[in-house]
Amino acid sequence: MFLVPPSLPPTPKDLVDKAHILLDRKLGPSKVLHLPESCERFSRDESEAEGRVPDLVVLAETLDDIRDTLTVSVEARVPLTARGAGTGRTGGAVPVAGGIVLDTTRMNQIKEIDRGDLVAVVAPGVILKDLHAAAEREGLFYPPDPNSWETCMLGGNIAENAGGPRAFKYGVTRDYVLGLETTLMGGTTLRTGRRTVKGVAGYDMTALFVGSEGTLGVFSEITLKLIPKPETVFTLMGLFGAARDATVAVEAMIRRGVVPRCLELTDSGSLDAMRAQGVGIDASARAMLLIDLDGDMTTCERDMERVGEACDEAKAIEVLVAQDASQRDRLWAARRELSHAIRNMAKNKLAEDVVVPRSRITDLMDAVERSGQEYGVRTLAYGHAGDGNLHVNFLWDDDEDVPKVHKAIEAMMRHVIEMRGTISGEHGIGVLKIPFLPWEQSAELIAVQKGIKDQLDPLGLLNPGKIFAPGGHKAC
Amino acid sequence: MFLVPPSLPPTPKDLVDKAHILLDRKLGPSKVLHLPESCERFSRDESEAEGRVPDLVVLAETLDDIRDTLTVSVEARVPLTARGAGTGRTGGAVPVAGGIVLDTTRMNQIKEIDRGDLVAVVAPGVILKDLHAAAEREGLFYPPDPNSWETCMLGGNIAENAGGPRAFKYGVTRDYVLGLETTLMGGTTLRTGRRTVKGVAGYDMTALFVGSEGTLGVFSEITLKLIPKPETVFTLMGLFGAARDATVAVEAMIRRGVVPRCLELTDSGSLDAMRAQGVGIDASARAMLLIDLDGDMTTCERDMERVGEACDEAKAIEVLVAQDASQRDRLWAARRELSHAIRNMAKNKLAEDVVVPRSRITDLMDAVERSGQEYGVRTLAYGHAGDGNLHVNFLWDDDEDVPKVHKAIEAMMRHVIEMRGTISGEHGIGVLKIPFLPWEQSAELIAVQKGIKDQLDPLGLLNPGKIFAPGGHKAC
Repeated sequence: MFLVPPSLPPTPKDLVDKAHILLDRKLGPSKVLHLPESCERFSRDESEAEGRVPDLVVLAETLDDIRDTLTVSVEARVPLTARGAGTGRTGGAVPVAGGIVLDTTRMNQIKEIDRGDLVAVVAPGVILKDLHAAAEREGLFYPPDPNSWETCMLGGNIAENAGGPRAFKYGVTRDYVLGLETTLMGGTTLRTGRRTVKGVAGYDMTALFVGSEGTLGVFSEITLKLIPKPETVFTLMGLFGAARDATVAVEAMIRRGVVPRCLELTDSGSLDAMRAQGVGIDASARAMLLIDLDGDMTTCERDMERVGEACDEAKAIEVLVAQDASQRDRLWAARRELSHAIRNMAKNKLAEDVVVPRSRITDLMDAVERSGQEYGVRTLAYGHAGDGNLHVNFLWDDDEDVPKVHKAIEAMMRHVIEMRGTISGEHGIGVLKIPFLPWEQSAELIAVQKGIKDQLDPLGLLNPGKIFAPGGHKAC
Repeated sequence: MFLVPPSLPPTPKDLVDKAHILLDRKLGPSKVLHLPESCERFSRDESEAEGRVPDLVVLAETLDDIRDTLTVSVEARVPLTARGAGTGRTGGAVPVAGGIVLDTTRMNQIKEIDRGDLVAVVAPGVILKDLHAAAEREGLFYPPDPNSWETCMLGGNIAENAGGPRAFKYGVTRDYVLGLETTLMGGTTLRTGRRTVKGVAGYDMTALFVGSEGTLGVFSEITLKLIPKPETVFTLMGLFGAARDATVAVEAMIRRGVVPRCLELTDSGSLDAMRAQGVGIDASARAMLLIDLDGDMTTCERDMERVGEACDEAKAIEVLVAQDASQRDRLWAARRELSHAIRNMAKNKLAEDVVVPRSRITDLMDAVERSGQEYGVRTLAYGHAGDGNLHVNFLWDDDEDVPKVHKAIEAMMRHVIEMRGTISGEHGIGVLKIPFLPWEQSAELIAVQKGIKDQLDPLGLLNPGKIFAPGGHKAC
């Protein structure tokens, strides 16, 4: 698989040795890995970013472990990258300078699910699937559902502000984080935010930490807002002869006042990938909408009718309604498998995650196709039509095509910016999107952000080489 | 009325003169007020904070006006306080050091209401009522509805992160701000956020500016998320023999899966105030719930039944359903008038705005009563029961009672913190709550916030004397 090499030099051995001694002393050897063979798996995440094998891996179990590790990082001047499940798609958890990886997967306690206050309190290593289950056992609901929901962890979800199909109706992770316990470089622990739904005491530091990709601090406790669990869920699938028809259907639904919980669009290339996985889909279909409706029975039945009308209005080839849970799971399994299915379609793949204003989604699909054709690179796109958020895949076999691929991606990004969209919908900037940040944001805006980073991490040791280009502007 | 005096000395005359000359030159005299009689009305807002009469008032009409004024403020070393309608309740817009007031009320253009993208783009001086109307003409909806909705302006709403009764179902201002155009001290203009619902490019600077109370920058353009307008609204009023019965009803509704758009609680003192205004309310009632349900007819009718059951379960004295719009308006008019009605009940009044986890709302009401009784101060409370957010009023006639009032407020605040609540639900910290911020937040957390403030406003000229105590910690 095609990889983007690390942007920073490795960490000098003498500093690593100092850190190793200090960590062994403070945490005990049982929590500190140092053999290359045991550290190797911490060098990667789910993205195309190539990391270095970390020199040391700390398996944190408590807030004190996190504090001690952040203190040691500063004392020994060794870079530190915090990490959960490593399911990120832009390299946020990849240690590009080696050094220490702070693994929080052992901190997996669901501390509280409170029905009265509608909050959950969790440690960063809790797997999202487990939180979903725990909330639903109490008749409650935690909406965010990134594609990696079965393995990803809350700490990473907060760090990357994870989204997911349900975001169209319920919003993203940011919308559910009430409070955070965050430790800064040097070991100061801040409790930000609150347990209440409302609160305006001082600046919204919690919102600043959400989506900061592990560059500002490390989370040890997360307070999340829950909502009552919807009574029922209906799933529909609409097949269309063209992507434009599908987006017409989306507009028609929204015009009818339907707010589906999920509104997933897949283009013809993605349908081919699903067919290749043995999913039976009408051969004439060039686009598909997968629609989840939730609420009480009456509302869902009414919305289902409206969705049907909308699909007819858009000349749908066919509209299927899942009759039971197993049919729903089958429909969704195909969609969830898509990103893996795509991996089998070519030797190399780069996945981009972009957003345009909802009304421009068809233009975005056209732009993707054009960008691919112009440079002779295969593209396919799928994603969250309701949010104008597409995951665009660029596929190629011949390694010599890399420059063409980069040109195609740049062409698409240029279109996205022109359409007043954003270069990252739910995957962050990490390593892979650093070159594009200045396309979307002014030098002054980037400088202000780096100023905040410099304030909280003056030595630049916390997850270095992420979001901002090394060097570049300083704070104004 | 009882007033809290300014915390900072006035601005030296020679600096003011320099600023006056520069502003006249850059903006022209027609946009610059300097006569005390014309500046006097800019010294106050709707709070008990006493400001100084500003030395200069700029009536900004364009982004360039804002930029020029912020540049002059730095050049002449004259403090600057931006201001919209001045409806704030904690003194956020009060110029405690005099200097320049930057008035944005002339910047009142609704630039865009986009049905396709579900966004509105407005200037800071747009009155919230006008945005509500413009959105609803397009079949769209902007939920935030602070009590001052008929006069307050969007710029101030963003600066204070305004809430309102609808926050229980729809969230607060923060949840609707997609993007901001903000000018920093010195005149750098940043465009943060986006026009898309999703986006994770860099830190969430937009969220940092929302609720920063005019201490970090001045807004010139605001991009807001809109949602489809609910088909219909039902209003109910439940009367109860005790506050505890009302909160039992609230829990019972939520248990039944009802999420009312508004869920307003008034205690017996507030009911007396309403009775004094000639509102006919059963004499035996000691608490009232005002409930708005919205959605489509079927959902509202079903929810209305469930609310009725919940009120019966809680032994409601009486449940009234508004039969038409005029009855709805009458019910709400009484509630909206409450804060003014309370003014007539005593010579002096201090209004606090606190939040506790929803399950503690009855405990909060008890705590308020106890705090009042302990120090012999009249209290009454009303607010957003669903959010655990109460507006608590302390009333007294004899000016010598001020120390007792402060003791009573401190006692209540202590209870709020003990209940893991927050000292400000929707009114910010401004001037009045500065003493309590350290009760809720650690010195380290306050220091980090002041560090961000220092980075963006190194001379401390932008809305000085707000949120943080003058002096105190520096950035870590």
